[in-house]
Order: sequence, then structure tokens, then C-alpha cells
Amino acid sequence: MTFHMPELIANKREGKALTQEQLFWIVDSYTNDEVPDYQMAPFLMAVLFQGMDDTELGCWTDAMLSSGQVLDLSSSPLPKVDKHSTGGVGDKISLPLAPLVAACGIAVPMMSGRGLGHTGGTLDKLESIPGFRTELSVEDFTAQLEDIGIVLAGQSAQLVPADRRLYALRDTTGTVPSIPLIASSMMSKKLAEDLDALVLDVKVGSGAFMKDTDQAQVLAATMVSIGASYGIPVVALLTSMDQPLGHEVGNANEVAESIAVLRGEGPADVVELTMTIGEEMLLAGGSGDRAEARKALDGAIASGAALEKFAEVIAAQGGDPGVIDDESLLPRAPKTMVVNSQVEGTVARCDALTVGQAAVRLGAGRESKEDEIDPGVGITIHAKVGDEIAAGAPLATVRYRSVHRLEECLGVLDTAWEFAVGPQEPEPLILGEVR
Amino acid sequence: MTFHMPELIANKREGKALTQEQLFWIVDSYTNDEVPDYQMAPFLMAVLFQGMDDTELGCWTDAMLSSGQVLDLSSSPLPKVDKHSTGGVGDKISLPLAPLVAACGIAVPMMSGRGLGHTGGTLDKLESIPGFRTELSVEDFTAQLEDIGIVLAGQSAQLVPADRRLYALRDTTGTVPSIPLIASSMMSKKLAEDLDALVLDVKVGSGAFMKDTDQAQVLAATMVSIGASYGIPVVALLTSMDQPLGHEVGNANEVAESIAVLRGEGPADVVELTMTIGEEMLLAGGSGDRAEARKALDGAIASGAALEKFAEVIAAQGGDPGVIDDESLLPRAPKTMVVNSQVEGTVARCDALTVGQAAVRLGAGRESKEDEIDPGVGITIHAKVGDEIAAGAPLATVRYRSVHRLEECLGVLDTAWEFAVGPQEPEPLILGEVR
Repeated sequence: MTFHMPELIANKREGKALTQEQLFWIVDSYTNDEVPDYQMAPFLMAVLFQGMDDTELGCWTDAMLSSGQVLDLSSSPLPKVDKHSTGGVGDKISLPLAPLVAACGIAVPMMSGRGLGHTGGTLDKLESIPGFRTELSVEDFTAQLEDIGIVLAGQSAQLVPADRRLYALRDTTGTVPSIPLIASSMMSKKLAEDLDALVLDVKVGSGAFMKDTDQAQVLAATMVSIGASYGIPVVALLTSMDQPLGHEVGNANEVAESIAVLRGEGPADVVELTMTIGEEMLLAGGSGDRAEARKALDGAIASGAALEKFAEVIAAQGGDPGVIDDESLLPRAPKTMVVNSQVEGTVARCDALTVGQAAVRLGAGRESKEDEIDPGVGITIHAKVGDEIAAGAPLATVRYRSVHRLEECLGVLDTAWEFAVGPQEPEPLILGEVR
Repeated sequence: MTFHMPELIANKREGKALTQEQLFWIVDSYTNDEVPDYQMAPFLMAVLFQGMDDTELGCWTDAMLSSGQVLDLSSSPLPKVDKHSTGGVGDKISLPLAPLVAACGIAVPMMSGRGLGHTGGTLDKLESIPGFRTELSVEDFTAQLEDIGIVLAGQSAQLVPADRRLYALRDTTGTVPSIPLIASSMMSKKLAEDLDALVLDVKVGSGAFMKDTDQAQVLAATMVSIGASYGIPVVALLTSMDQPLGHEVGNANEVAESIAVLRGEGPADVVELTMTIGEEMLLAGGSGDRAEARKALDGAIASGAALEKFAEVIAAQGGDPGVIDDESLLPRAPKTMVVNSQVEGTVARCDALTVGQAAVRLGAGRESKEDEIDPGVGITIHAKVGDEIAAGAPLATVRYRSVHRLEECLGVLDTAWEFAVGPQEPEPLILGEVR
């Protein structure tokens, strides 16, 4: 069966639902270079305006999944649970979380992405560990999961190739912010991982994709419902991304903070989120109740098992596990500069988007996909919402390599903070959940 | 000044107005291959959903116009007035109209297009006259207008090159039915013709682009307002396209019917529309009043001057002017078949879209741009709305070359007619006007 792409674009443009056959044809033909980018892009724009109904979205996700291989991880006897975040600033949660959960007997076959724009990427952070390889073959991925119960890798080229192309196309054609397109992209990649369960961290706020809770709720519900249609239990937490998570933004900076979490010394918000998502992953993997799950997580930190698991996965993927004990093995830009407060007051706002953009200016992130990342630059935030600050007290320490980039960074970073008189409560970290 | 195309697409997607600088940059960059089709197409889709305000539309039209040359027809001393139709079925009005008006002392520098889909194109009709050339250089175009006051040519490649590319892109990307895009495409081409005035025939109905009068009214008003911003008086007539115009559909068929009009023997609707638009063109070109204009038109037909002018332009463009007196010089497919009515009744509907599609199946039109046209095939309609038809009476005569194509044509054509009991009034031909 073949279709006429301009007609399918016109149907979607007019808000008609497409059939399963039509949606599969579009994805197949695009993957096989039979539908060109210049037809796919306006189709995606029409989807952005007209949406997809549940049936269409299921077919579209299925078609994406069918464009490539699906992992067979049945050689791992443990329950397989992954976590995925929609992306934020200072969001290093995956780094402490995956080894922590793996230390509690859950297999974590985690495939992550790179940072783009103001959001960081787990792969970039991991690669700041000297020697760490994120490109694994399907065979190595499967074997390592069976062997040590944790893999922290990039998306395999064999899995969901349609998404790889669509994602790149959307990024350059203004067609990113569509809930069905975001949901199907994330879920098709996760469904290809042969999971038993999935926990989603849907970020809400200035530094997130979803700026308000309503939108985030819809995205979360959409992904949970896609999971359900494949028989995969999905729990989505809606969490705040108005200010950066933790104190560290930048790749090596965030690895160091992640190690601190595993050592039991992490900042409160990072610890809270790691533990909450960890509980959900353990519950999804068969733990009896939340208290029991929490006990297991606390135990894995106290015993050093979680830190040991991180060292194990670093070593398995070619990295230097010495970073666990010796932070100086991480790449660090040579110069630092402290940004001080001009005023006295309580921090009312420490804007995640602004800090993320400042970090990109510094070289910690990418403005376009071709940009090189500098793993050793970053921003340490000293003043977060609710903190009382004296005039002249430090707001942030910027670790930089070139003065030119420092200046660009500071021009942005200066606007991140707002102050008020009297106590300020940060927004709760966990805003809601969808099961 | 350079811009970032994904950002401009996102702005338009979110309904923000773009600046003059941004709109010029988009058109320039697209024309210079710096913005690729895969970014232009989703931008056009965003325009389709979000529209353009008057300022944006003016800038966009201006940018299109600036992408190429603008004619200088100042060597022709006569007032220069053109007519443009948004396209329909059996719409051969340009063929009798242009020589008729030229015979009355108006210079007609007409650039037309080809048919696509169910609508015919003036160029295709003209090219069914043996030898007729529609590709003229700017120099030949200018000289012929000065010489005989009429040119019937294709769009010059030097004029509005941006539109040529955009038009082709829109056709394959489901981004045609956008009022600002249609209006700017038509008006930029007409503004490049160095006109003193323009009369638009905006078709409304089943066989037209615009299916209802409200939409057509908006399109007409948009084009009139673009004209006004260039100081060019534009009159737009809204005319009915629910049934084909006249009796003839197909290229040589329509040339023959056009000659009949110039001979004073045309069907009532074609004559009425030709005369009404002719009056507007003469008024726009300086005639004192409508009665005087009508008298001049009637006189040019009665004296044979209009027919003579048609012969003159045919000869000037390499065609055989003998077709004026000898219809057998036109290419004619060898076989005919008469379609008879199964029932008795009054014709309540003779659907323009259906007849147009049947003609395409026969080979009189193109389904895609690469298709070859057969100038000698066509459909002669015997039964139009309001006609009382006996059972077994002829509805149409199909002139065809291959039985296979005849069958395809008949499969569609059979559904064109609907019958009723008692008198049926066709819709008035002229539905409204915008000045």
C-alpha cells in the first residue's frame, strides 16, 4: 500500500485522524528515504497544531519502534527498570540513581542522550570521567547488564533509527514542542530497551521543556498511557525545574556532586529526588513497600555498595574508577571567579534557564549539535531560593578556561537571581505524579 | 543581519509577527539556497495556521517581488491592465477577453500559468494552437506589447523567482490553502508586470480553490489591499465555479469556444463573464463609464476587431492564425462518445470539480507537474443547471484517444450530474466584488 504524502499532510493539517497503515507508511518511507525531510517537516508542524488521538499516537510509537531493533535482555534475571528525565539544569540524578538502584538488585539498562541548549545530557557528564565510553554494541550492552546489572550508554544506532532522524529534523525545524511527538520519541526509545518498568521524571518550570504543570501533566499522562498499551508500568513524577538541581552545573562539576550523593553527602534536593525516584524504581521492580525500598536505598549508601557499583560501571565502560576517591582526576578548567551579591536579602529566584544558558556560554553545553563541550568548566551555585544573603556574599563560583567565555557567561548569569525581604519558600520539589 | 531559521519558525508557530528584516531574510536566504526546503516547508505550514498580519503580508510580498526583476513596460503608451483568475473548470475567459480588451485600446501584458489538478491553465490552452509559443524573453515580451498591445505568455523566469520555488514547494507539502500565501504569490507576480490596474476573478465553489464566499471575500480583500499598498487599483469579482464555465472543457475544445465568443456566438455564461471583466478592465484603463465600456466591447466583437486581434497575437507568437477560421486546424482526438442521461428531469447540479477531475483522467490536465497534456481530448457539456433533460438525452460528449482513459474518465464523470423535478435556477455568475 502506498500513499501520497502531500495528501496525508493535508489530512493532518485539516485535523483528520490518520490510519495505522498511513502512519506506518510515513515512518517507513521516511526511514527509507522515500519521504524527504521537506515533506516530513511540514507534516510534523501539522501534528504540532492538530495533535494525534490516542490510536494515532499508539500507531506512530509502534511504527517508530518497528523502524529498528528491540533489545532482548532476557539473559538478565533481575527486574529491569529504567528512569528517564525530560531534562533540566543541574539534573545529574541519573548518575547517583542508576548505581544506587542497581546496588539494590534492580537491573538498570540505561540509554541516555546528550545535552542540547540549556539542558545538560547524561552522556556528556559521564564522558567527563577520563576514559568513559558511552558507545556500546548491543552485544556488549547485553553482556554488561547480565554481568554487573547496570549499563550507562548512548542510544544504540540499531534502536529506533526513525527517532534519531526525526529528532534531528525537529530540532532544526521548530517542531519540537509537540506533546505527541515528545511522548512518542521518548517512549519508543524506552520501549526498545526491553524494560519491565519505567519511571519518568517530567520536569516543570523555567529550566524545563514544559513551563507549566498542566502541560507537564498532559505529557506525563500521554507517556504513561503509551506504556500501558505495551503492558509496561510507567510512573511519572512531575518535579520542579525553576532553579537548578543541587549546587553544581557543568559536566565534571556534576559528576563530583553525584559522587557526593553516593557518599551520603549530597545536597538536600538532589538527595530527595534521587531517593524518591529510587523508591519508585524499587517498587516497580518488586519491592514490598515504600519504607522497605527506602531502607534498601539508605543501606546501599551507608554500606558503600552504591558507590562501589558506580566504580564498577565506570571500570566496565573503560573509565577511571579512581575518580570516586580522587576528584582531582576529573578534568577541571584552571581558573575560577566568584560572583558576589550586590545586595542583601533572601533569594526569591535562581532561574534555572538563565543558569543553564550561562553554562552554555561558558562551554559546558551546546548551542548547536556540532559544538564541542568543555567538560571542565561549570558553575557552582552558592545561593538558592530561601537562602539569606549578605551584601558581598558569594552567589556562584564560575570555573572557566577563557576570559572571553567567562564574560559571555557573566553577562547572562548576573540576571539569574532575584531577592526579596523576609523568608522565601522554594517550590516543593515533587509537584505531582501520574501512574 | 542574519537570523536563525528554527527560531523564526518557532516565532511564527507561536503566532508572533515577524519583522520586515526577518521576512526579507527568509525569502532572500531561501532564494539563495541558504534556507533549505525542509525549513521553509514547516515555516509555510506555521503561516498556514497562524496567518500573517497586513504589515507582514506587505513585507513578504515585497520580498518576493525583490527576489527578481520587475518589468519596465513604459515603452507602451497605452494603459496596461491585466486580469487574473484563481482558476476553475472550463475557465477559458482569458482567451477571448485579452484580445477583446486589447482591441479596445488597452495594453494587456498577460502572464499566465499551467493547469494543475482539476483546474485548467491558460498556457496549456494556448499551446493547443499549432506553433503557439508561450515562452518569451523579457525583450520580446516588451517589444510585442509595444507593437500590438497584447502578449499572452508564461511567467518569465526573471520575475519573482522566489514564487516559482515556493509554489512548487507548497504544492508538494500540503501548504497551498493559506490566504496570505495565495495572495502574495498571485500579487507579487502581477506587481512585477508593471501594470496600471488589475482585475481579479476570484472563483468560488466546488471547482474552485475557495469553496465558500466568505473565504473568497477574504482572499479578494487581501489581494485588493496588497495592490492598494503599491498604488495599483485592483478590482476583484467573486464568481461562481459550481459548474463548468461554458460547454467546453479541455484545451483545444476551449480554444474553439473562445473563438466562438469572439465571433459573437459564445455561450451565455462565458459571454457574460468576459463582458463583465472586460468592462472592469476598460474602466480601470480610463473608459468614462460602464455603458461606454460595454459599447466599445460590443463594437470590437461586431466589427471583427477582437477576433482580428486574437489572430494577430497568435501570429506574433508563432501560432497558426488560420485556427480562427478553420477549427479543424486544432488538434482533436479521433474518437467521441456520447454520455446519455438515464433519467428525465431538470439538472440541479453539474459539478465543476467532478467534470474537472474527469477531464484530468482523460489527459486534458495534469495530476502531477511532470504529466504530459493531450491537447486534443476534452468534454463537451450538453446539460447545465436548469436544463430540462429527457431520459436518453445527451449529457456530454467525450473526445478521447485511448479506451483505457475514456473508461477512467467515465467512472468519474457519471457522478457529476444531479437531477430534480421542476425548475432549477443556477447560482448567479457574479457573486460579489471587492474594490
